[in-house]
Amino acid sequence: MNTLRTLPITGQAVRSSTCGILRCGVWLSTLALIGLTAYAGSPGRVELPHLVMSQSRRHIRIPDILGFQTLKCDFHMHTVFSDGSVWPTIRVDEAWQEGLDAIAITDHIERNPSKKHVGGDDNAAYTIAEPHAREMGIILIRGAEITRAMPPGHLNALFVQDAQKLDVPDVMDALQEAGRQGAFIFWNHPGWADQQPEAPIMFDIHRQMATNRLLCGIEVFNEKEWYPAALDWCHEHRVAVLSNSDIHDLVSHTYDLERGRRPMTLVLSTERTERGIRDALFAGRTIACFDDRLAGRAEYLSAIFEASVKTRKIAEVKNRKNEKEYVWEIVNSCEIPFVIASVHGTWSVPGNRTIIHRGMPGVEPVPVRVLNLHVSGEGTLNTEMVFHEE
Amino acid sequence: MNTLRTLPITGQAVRSSTCGILRCGVWLSTLALIGLTAYAGSPGRVELPHLVMSQSRRHIRIPDILGFQTLKCDFHMHTVFSDGSVWPTIRVDEAWQEGLDAIAITDHIERNPSKKHVGGDDNAAYTIAEPHAREMGIILIRGAEITRAMPPGHLNALFVQDAQKLDVPDVMDALQEAGRQGAFIFWNHPGWADQQPEAPIMFDIHRQMATNRLLCGIEVFNEKEWYPAALDWCHEHRVAVLSNSDIHDLVSHTYDLERGRRPMTLVLSTERTERGIRDALFAGRTIACFDDRLAGRAEYLSAIFEASVKTRKIAEVKNRKNEKEYVWEIVNSCEIPFVIASVHGTWSVPGNRTIIHRGMPGVEPVPVRVLNLHVSGEGTLNTEMVFHEE
Amino acid sequence: MNTLRTLPITGQAVRSSTCGILRCGVWLSTLALIGLTAYAGSPGRVELPHLVMSQSRRHIRIPDILGFQTLKCDFHMHTVFSDGSVWPTIRVDEAWQEGLDAIAITDHIERNPSKKHVGGDDNAAYTIAEPHAREMGIILIRGAEITRAMPPGHLNALFVQDAQKLDVPDVMDALQEAGRQGAFIFWNHPGWADQQPEAPIMFDIHRQMATNRLLCGIEVFNEKEWYPAALDWCHEHRVAVLSNSDIHDLVSHTYDLERGRRPMTLVLSTERTERGIRDALFAGRTIACFDDRLAGRAEYLSAIFEASVKTRKIAEVKNRKNEKEYVWEIVNSCEIPFVIASVHGTWSVPGNRTIIHRGMPGVEPVPVRVLNLHVSGEGTLNTEMVFHEE
Amino acid sequence: MNTLRTLPITGQAVRSSTCGILRCGVWLSTLALIGLTAYAGSPGRVELPHLVMSQSRRHIRIPDILGFQTLKCDFHMHTVFSDGSVWPTIRVDEAWQEGLDAIAITDHIERNPSKKHVGGDDNAAYTIAEPHAREMGIILIRGAEITRAMPPGHLNALFVQDAQKLDVPDVMDALQEAGRQGAFIFWNHPGWADQQPEAPIMFDIHRQMATNRLLCGIEVFNEKEWYPAALDWCHEHRVAVLSNSDIHDLVSHTYDLERGRRPMTLVLSTERTERGIRDALFAGRTIACFDDRLAGRAEYLSAIFEASVKTRKIAEVKNRKNEKEYVWEIVNSCEIPFVIASVHGTWSVPGNRTIIHRGMPGVEPVPVRVLNLHVSGEGTLNTEMVFHEE
Repeated sequence: MNTLRTLPITGQAVRSSTCGILRCGVWLSTLALIGLTAYAGSPGRVELPHLVMSQSRRHIRIPDILGFQTLKCDFHMHTVFSDGSVWPTIRVDEAWQEGLDAIAITDHIERNPSKKHVGGDDNAAYTIAEPHAREMGIILIRGAEITRAMPPGHLNALFVQDAQKLDVPDVMDALQEAGRQGAFIFWNHPGWADQQPEAPIMFDIHRQMATNRLLCGIEVFNEKEWYPAALDWCHEHRVAVLSNSDIHDLVSHTYDLERGRRPMTLVLSTERTERGIRDALFAGRTIACFDDRLAGRAEYLSAIFEASVKTRKIAEVKNRKNEKEYVWEIVNSCEIPFVIASVHGTWSVPGNRTIIHRGMPGVEPVPVRVLNLHVSGEGTLNTEMVFHEE
Repeated sequence: MNTLRTLPITGQAVRSSTCGILRCGVWLSTLALIGLTAYAGSPGRVELPHLVMSQSRRHIRIPDILGFQTLKCDFHMHTVFSDGSVWPTIRVDEAWQEGLDAIAITDHIERNPSKKHVGGDDNAAYTIAEPHAREMGIILIRGAEITRAMPPGHLNALFVQDAQKLDVPDVMDALQEAGRQGAFIFWNHPGWADQQPEAPIMFDIHRQMATNRLLCGIEVFNEKEWYPAALDWCHEHRVAVLSNSDIHDLVSHTYDLERGRRPMTLVLSTERTERGIRDALFAGRTIACFDDRLAGRAEYLSAIFEASVKTRKIAEVKNRKNEKEYVWEIVNSCEIPFVIASVHGTWSVPGNRTIIHRGMPGVEPVPVRVLNLHVSGEGTLNTEMVFHEE
Repeated sequence: MNTLRTLPITGQAVRSSTCGILRCGVWLSTLALIGLTAYAGSPGRVELPHLVMSQSRRHIRIPDILGFQTLKCDFHMHTVFSDGSVWPTIRVDEAWQEGLDAIAITDHIERNPSKKHVGGDDNAAYTIAEPHAREMGIILIRGAEITRAMPPGHLNALFVQDAQKLDVPDVMDALQEAGRQGAFIFWNHPGWADQQPEAPIMFDIHRQMATNRLLCGIEVFNEKEWYPAALDWCHEHRVAVLSNSDIHDLVSHTYDLERGRRPMTLVLSTERTERGIRDALFAGRTIACFDDRLAGRAEYLSAIFEASVKTRKIAEVKNRKNEKEYVWEIVNSCEIPFVIASVHGTWSVPGNRTIIHRGMPGVEPVPVRVLNLHVSGEGTLNTEMVFHEE
Repeated sequence: MNTLRTLPITGQAVRSSTCGILRCGVWLSTLALIGLTAYAGSPGRVELPHLVMSQSRRHIRIPDILGFQTLKCDFHMHTVFSDGSVWPTIRVDEAWQEGLDAIAITDHIERNPSKKHVGGDDNAAYTIAEPHAREMGIILIRGAEITRAMPPGHLNALFVQDAQKLDVPDVMDALQEAGRQGAFIFWNHPGWADQQPEAPIMFDIHRQMATNRLLCGIEVFNEKEWYPAALDWCHEHRVAVLSNSDIHDLVSHTYDLERGRRPMTLVLSTERTERGIRDALFAGRTIACFDDRLAGRAEYLSAIFEASVKTRKIAEVKNRKNEKEYVWEIVNSCEIPFVIASVHGTWSVPGNRTIIHRGMPGVEPVPVRVLNLHVSGEGTLNTEMVFHEE
């Protein structure tokens, strides 16, 4: 320790020197603390709270539209009570941190490789997670996955009363029972290659189920897949579009949460309650959202676009030919980016960002196509943008 | 769709336009794909693999020293088989991705709030995780946490044969049984405020256990705490230093893995096997590593520093007084940063980075202190750096 | 190419395989494009727009208060026209991308190491940058740095008409000339160690200048320093607080723009114009903002806090003693975090995030101190938070 | 300040509370420092070094091959001495931080929009930057861009003695002069749409120049474009491939340096000197590298691949059919990822990462194609991987 005294290492020196390693972490703060504190003997405990991450909830900025609240939901996920790898309460924590409003845990009724180790019946995951969800302000919907060969494949039932009763041999019996319990039933990953190795089709049984209201929704995004044809099926049968993670592992091991999001079903609800969500689902008031695309009815996508993107003239300038040009800001207040094609070029406006467009003065609305808003399997939103001179 | 044909939206246009949203994600690739492909009807399935994260193993760059391999280990963690929230196989996946060599799952013997739902005995977590660990090349050590009031507090036993047999009322009986099974026993979080609200002390029972080789190690880092006094206790009793996560939740929910790491015990082992680790632990050949600090014997820290930091003269220049000065690179090939105090100033060298030092020519080695290498509760490493003229 | 045909490398295979490298970049998209396209001969050009960054403007979320717009400004920066290293238009681009409303380029009048190579007079930087600023919607204020020994040290003059005329030997002559031009003059980095190696003091000349309105503001943050005493001096002399970058190099080489921001002066202005800013500066309606602290008058900081932080009761629960507890969300809609100390604990609420607080029911407002809102050199904001039962 | 004393805000409390805001920055350290220090009056100066970024040099991990050093170079960039926006020394700082070995500043001879403001001749940028390059250990090569209509378009001359002499009306005169000065001349962005709006072609004049050794290299990557046909032209005329940034703005405003890199020419040199680079360029010993692709001679790409990717058997397991399978690690020690297609599937191995492959035992080398290693405009590297049983 003699050397220490002869070296110019004051607390100040330590602090000044630490700038070099900022990008490598933040340990410097505690180093400085120790340097500044006169201990009698070695300290017994130094807390390093900055080395563990915060527990906080992010805000997802997607506008409310058409008089409804835009709730962010994920209705398909698993826990150790089927073939997932997490305890049910983790699903609540994940949803809370990511800014979701509602989730459904939908463990497989028929398939549970952990059953040797995990007891409980098909309602156990819900029972375990529900008190935690209530405390965190997350709407937890009781769900179950009816897991069969194709057709009809895998189906999720939400708002069930007793998942145990769905554990019956015949799939139609299971669906009838779910129907009796008032469930909202939707078709999971309809284009999954394991069950539809050829070009995915909608089977007759699905059409019949839709007619009988035993199929009221279809996933158009699942995990990392997108089923454009299924969007057409939803329109044809007037059922809700869904976008769900089907997460088995941790969300944070699967999606890059710093730069992206899990798949979400946006529910246009009259209120932030289970009842509001239920009514909206049966009424088909949903938008499927995966990362930077939205899919659903043109009416809803158009409303999202209009509520998110504004233009503002900021300058008049001369171009190289000495003609007057206007400079506009295109401001996107939503966290979904928009890629907008027009005769004036294609504008990519990142989420929560502004870009600049220079163009000739003009009073006519500009027809545009928004390339990441899918109104059908093949079609993207046609709409207009107004560039006011003010 | 008529509008589409009249707008200049070729595949090329789409690709060109997408640069604006790079920072928001990478969905553009599939957008472009769709744009370029002529479908007959809506496609049934589009894969978006870029939206889920890779499963790959990172490389932790810390040098091998003194003829030993430097293995990266975490010997303290929990699963749903005690009060953790993950299935045991997740602990293997996490360790593999983070680049660890060995882990021990150490569920509490006495405390299991999930017991109502999770069956299995105290060996179940190991039994479930072991085949997966073998496949992934992770060394899984059978462990258990003996969880008692202070003293002696919480103790981990590694290399046990049957954790179930440690479930006995008297703590000394449990320790004796662990000893009979050949276990390596260490004291967990000795400065934990819940059990040592005042200045943490080592109790007589701990000293006796150390004398009887029923205590062969002490954690100096745990979760987010650092116990400098415990480093002195390790030296005094010649037991191994340990640094463990004590993780209950997910590692990725707790530590910022993009910019940091979990606490690790670096084991200086003759081979990458359970036997090698066992021998090293009993011999005290360990270094405690948390984020950007190392703690342990001066001999080991000095070897890490020497193997990591090199100097290289790159130029001769004149200073403002027209005196000759040398420009040296200080190159750090380890991913731990070093903060080096000398009479010439303090050099912070980030991990895997190089900085520049300008100074007068000189042939003498420069005495330095490395402020983030802790050789005792109060002391940091004194060593020398050589600036060769070549 | 023969091998290709015998290997199962379809476009589909390529796309499926690329998920493994998402974290390493996004080249996969163009790889896939090439794979899917049938070229006649090698293609001449493939655009990789996703590999360069977008030009877009971020939104800084700090609320408007007290009927004013909260403009984000930086009034101190350099270019190659003094000792900076960038061309003047770069300062506009940086400001636009970072979301600032107004900047002043304040090159040194007296000190220009590039003068051998760069011609132009002291107004050249403004003349070059102004057309670009107008096009981008950035308010560019003509400024100059009067650069003298202490006292009075370095002073910035904003809103000057002709910077060239400030190039006179006597500093008081320069200030008088700036005053004649209607300039707003402030004292730069009053605690800079090069000019105030001992405890920084305010000199008599500064007091006289303040009395004569030749000093109407003082920097309390500059580059990476914070001068708490200067905040007291601002209050005492009723002059504006300022927080500026004094950037010479690139902003993005100096501050971590992904996780932080440059220092900013928040100007409470009646309108987003140079006139509005000028009136606000002379009236002292400013807040100094550096990264995650605000400094200024209690009245302004209190308004920011109230406009940013809301509480909401989300649940009633029972604690371990079976007493009723409430669960509240504490929602921060500002991008500045707040660290709030109360008798119930300390709440750190990150920017644009929500945290949860559990506590006993109660109708009284809770007195709090907000530890990162500095109302004086030593004091932080005392205020109240209301936890409504609704 | 009275309230402060009655609230439980000790330094400890502050430290404990700060964990919640880690993700928002690191201001907590100085907050804690202030909290812990007893000041007499408001402090005059608090340094916040952690809020500005480190000046350190990263290490680019690409292996040396075939007995040569693999130098990382960028031979095409601009400053304010033509139409770039930065002072020449910035180019040295950028190169040093990013880990490059050599750069050439190649300002346009004929085109300098800043000329009204920036004096100096065509050698000024080199003269200004050279002393700084020497101090930082960066090899600075004197260059110039001969900027003409197509054909021959834009050409860079490296290793010129006096760039001023290239400022002559006839392009062939300029090239002859460059040749007399011993310059290495290469064709810039041969597929640039502004000069080759149709499918890019090589003109006769280029062929003649190549024959006369007045064209010894061609860019196959430039800024954000890739010219596959140009790779074929390089092979046909036996000239060097180049990959350069052509940066005008800041590198960090253009490329995402946290997740990517600028385009680089990898030079296989006998030594880290200007002479070594010159010899290598004339001998065509280069590899073009942009982000995650390499382009060049099969011999060089094959050597990079072999030096980077290793396999290691880590386990023997049984598959579902109870057949023996082997588990191999595929370890990539290079920071370029590799996408490897084989009959066993496609393996994406991120840079500095390891993945796992399970497969049947076998002793034969496995033929593979490495999809991101371009050996011709249309072809990628065919090679073999060995999976040893050991």
